[in-house]
Amino acid sequence: MRKSIAQRFWFLLHHRHQNHHPSSFSSSSPLIHSRFLSSTPALSSMDSSFPVTANNINPKVLKCEYAVRGEIVTLAQKLQEDLQANPGSHPFEEILYCNIGNPQSLGQQPITFFREVLALCDHPAILDRSETQGLFSTDSIERAWTIVDQIPGRATGAYSHSQGIKGLRDAIAAGIEARDGFPADPNDIFLTDGASPAVHMMMQLLIRSENDGILCPIPQYPLYSASIALHGGTLVPYYLDEATGWGLEISELKKQLEDAKSKGINVRALVVINPGNPTGQVLSEENQREIVKFCKLEGLVLLADEVYQENVYVPEKEFHSFKKISRSVGYGENDIALVSFQSVSKGYYGECGKRGGYMEVTGFSSEVREQIYKVASVNLCSNISGQILASLVMSPPKVGDESYELYMAEKEAILSSLTRRAKTLEEAFNKLEGVTCNKTEGAMYLFPRIRLPEKAIKAAEALNKAPDAFYCGRLLNATGVVVVPGSGFGQVPGTWHFRCTILPQEDKIPAIASRLTEFHEKFMDEFRD
Amino acid sequence: MRKSIAQRFWFLLHHRHQNHHPSSFSSSSPLIHSRFLSSTPALSSMDSSFPVTANNINPKVLKCEYAVRGEIVTLAQKLQEDLQANPGSHPFEEILYCNIGNPQSLGQQPITFFREVLALCDHPAILDRSETQGLFSTDSIERAWTIVDQIPGRATGAYSHSQGIKGLRDAIAAGIEARDGFPADPNDIFLTDGASPAVHMMMQLLIRSENDGILCPIPQYPLYSASIALHGGTLVPYYLDEATGWGLEISELKKQLEDAKSKGINVRALVVINPGNPTGQVLSEENQREIVKFCKLEGLVLLADEVYQENVYVPEKEFHSFKKISRSVGYGENDIALVSFQSVSKGYYGECGKRGGYMEVTGFSSEVREQIYKVASVNLCSNISGQILASLVMSPPKVGDESYELYMAEKEAILSSLTRRAKTLEEAFNKLEGVTCNKTEGAMYLFPRIRLPEKAIKAAEALNKAPDAFYCGRLLNATGVVVVPGSGFGQVPGTWHFRCTILPQEDKIPAIASRLTEFHEKFMDEFRD
Repeated sequence: MRKSIAQRFWFLLHHRHQNHHPSSFSSSSPLIHSRFLSSTPALSSMDSSFPVTANNINPKVLKCEYAVRGEIVTLAQKLQEDLQANPGSHPFEEILYCNIGNPQSLGQQPITFFREVLALCDHPAILDRSETQGLFSTDSIERAWTIVDQIPGRATGAYSHSQGIKGLRDAIAAGIEARDGFPADPNDIFLTDGASPAVHMMMQLLIRSENDGILCPIPQYPLYSASIALHGGTLVPYYLDEATGWGLEISELKKQLEDAKSKGINVRALVVINPGNPTGQVLSEENQREIVKFCKLEGLVLLADEVYQENVYVPEKEFHSFKKISRSVGYGENDIALVSFQSVSKGYYGECGKRGGYMEVTGFSSEVREQIYKVASVNLCSNISGQILASLVMSPPKVGDESYELYMAEKEAILSSLTRRAKTLEEAFNKLEGVTCNKTEGAMYLFPRIRLPEKAIKAAEALNKAPDAFYCGRLLNATGVVVVPGSGFGQVPGTWHFRCTILPQEDKIPAIASRLTEFHEKFMDEFRD
Repeated sequence: MRKSIAQRFWFLLHHRHQNHHPSSFSSSSPLIHSRFLSSTPALSSMDSSFPVTANNINPKVLKCEYAVRGEIVTLAQKLQEDLQANPGSHPFEEILYCNIGNPQSLGQQPITFFREVLALCDHPAILDRSETQGLFSTDSIERAWTIVDQIPGRATGAYSHSQGIKGLRDAIAAGIEARDGFPADPNDIFLTDGASPAVHMMMQLLIRSENDGILCPIPQYPLYSASIALHGGTLVPYYLDEATGWGLEISELKKQLEDAKSKGINVRALVVINPGNPTGQVLSEENQREIVKFCKLEGLVLLADEVYQENVYVPEKEFHSFKKISRSVGYGENDIALVSFQSVSKGYYGECGKRGGYMEVTGFSSEVREQIYKVASVNLCSNISGQILASLVMSPPKVGDESYELYMAEKEAILSSLTRRAKTLEEAFNKLEGVTCNKTEGAMYLFPRIRLPEKAIKAAEALNKAPDAFYCGRLLNATGVVVVPGSGFGQVPGTWHFRCTILPQEDKIPAIASRLTEFHEKFMDEFRD
């Protein structure tokens, strides 16, 4: 495969210490992690009888990587099948999926009010039946009526407006206003099947060629690297500073932006994930003000991943949307192009399977917004249940509603338990030899750094694996705990990490901590230099 | 914008009669219709204060068009707002959206059993409550239990396997086997948010550059042209023969394939829409056999849009899947690469808002399938309600189930009414001066041809509009009926059509027919040469 000049620059800049990990495609990638986690198939002639082969598909597809469901998860699924077929065949009884922010898969229960409303909207025929009163809360019935009435013709099974049902966007805009204290326009809301399609839409809009760059944090959530690869752009990395709790330094942004510009890259946007994924930091207001000023000054679109806005676990930090920060420093529509992503998959609700979410798009010309609308219209609309749920998370029960107490109790129980789980796991990690772990201020993850002995690094190299992937594979085989190697998110070259969710149910956390500890001690005993 | 050599060829081939319609981007498009329906904004300096402008976004986005929700629908929405604000401001009382296959928006009611199961799966907490017995059918409760038990950990709000929940794929594969009489493998099923994302996934996989071509019928459903444009490929048109009821001739496929090859285009796949959209024909088995042989011979992937498989209205025709045809001529996995698209949005169910669907992918090497899985995994999974519904439409109630009679009655009522509506509208169109309309054998549309007087064509040109777009705009303004100009689907140059759904409720059909007739007579009186 040919490398563009731009890609070669990034490669030379960021990969020079890693030349001993051969991989057929990843060498042309601007991404740090793709050298290690590449599952690019060997381009054999095995499948030459098929018209479509790994040799003749879109190379952007081959290049794209998504570690969160990558090699380690395939291995975990295999082990799970083993366990089902032959109980006792491994030194653990179950696979614990700590690889992905998927709370309900680990036992978190849905919020009752949300599910009541969804069920009633799915089958509105029962809304005025007397038995319904006994099964559902009064306010869920009222809310379902309100929503059904907002749908033209009460057609709950029809395609909606391509941005989503207007009444639901009104509710979301009102929720944003209540959160931020600044106006929000329902016409700025695009409802989407989770946040991922919204991110793809913006990448598709902004990226024209590999000469267009997107500034992304390293470590980052690999949706961003995957989407940039699929759309043929260049990921311009900026490093978060682990030593200052994954601090986002404007000087680093400036340095990387200038560096990219000097190589002919048109940097179009800055991705900020707040609270951070996989890093768990919550940005300070002062830092956010610097960021919006930087974007305005440099003419960058700010792509604000705010899907963890409800997941803040430390009293000294609070979530502030970038929209609120922008407006509070006096920036209006014409000053900054800002897209905020939100999802029903995270927060205390964790409704991943519903695929609901939205983006709030501000600071674009009407011409460009028409183009965004057009792309949305090609897929007609996002799923209506997800749309409804997105409106519910932005307008939950209020004081005085019948469901309010139960809703608050469920929400508080989940968030306070997550706070405790984060702390327990963080403490456990920090006790391990050679491991340091920043505090999880928000989001759903810990991202400990592991200092691996040279002997372990050599053993990994012999297997053509990244050292942290080697560690995580060993961990999985020994304990059934699935975590994702830091190389799937990007990290300072020569450092090694893994991402572990804080989502296993609380009663399982002590056992997990002791299994991790036991494994780590044995691993270090085996490989200590 | 630069035109590639391949694009210029297509342009010269298909656009030579249309050079009097200027449009800044569409001239580089290989698509027949894009010269006319382009809503590409004037590249003014209006928005120069924004960092992102129509001048610097992805040109593939600018080029993409989706007529079904294009200009005419924007006008309709404006008129609807007018009517709400000022009742009586137009010569009609309501807007009738015949532009899109969206049955429930026009009053079609959902199938009760499907909605019962969806509601119960959304709120499984009520599954064992006694009131539930009074509100839901016994078999819907049983089915919901089965489905909830198929979800690991009964976690109805978790991300599923990226291909969809295994138990649901088992049910779908069993449904395909029952339909075709040939085996189906649940591992070949990829559940998606409607059929559109599945089509995008295949285009993304197959298209590397504008030198890769996809054979598409003309007229076609504009998702295909939009997706090919977004992925930067070339649409290679083959014409359906209106004179033989929109016949698909192998000689035409061969001619267009050879023509494309001679221009350096790698033709990778053949799109067939059966039953046809917008054309409504149902292919004969013999014709389908020729098509699969052609694909095998030429090494083309067969992309079979089979979303209207339940919509056949004439006794002499029957739907046969291309998988069944392939297997019945003796082709196995290694002989033909075949993707079948199915959706919950069409059929008698018409559950557009649920965004459920699947593709069955056969005849690809394991290496390529891994790549398809990887791309699916980047978006995690499709929405679970849509997944459940896709399994239900492929395994509806059976004889003996409590819901069976109601289910059959609802289904038959919808399908027989659609049959009558198609016939009434077809007859009405065929009575109009200069209009001929093929029979709707299947799908949800009529695609009448209108022979427009020279004076009307001149009047359209003066407004820089395609003549059929001019006609459809006039029709909307006079009657409130929204139909889509043929130029949005492609047509033989110099012929004009429009697409009209058969979906308005039956009691409205006579009024629509008489409004159309009255409009058409006046239009002809005004423009008759």
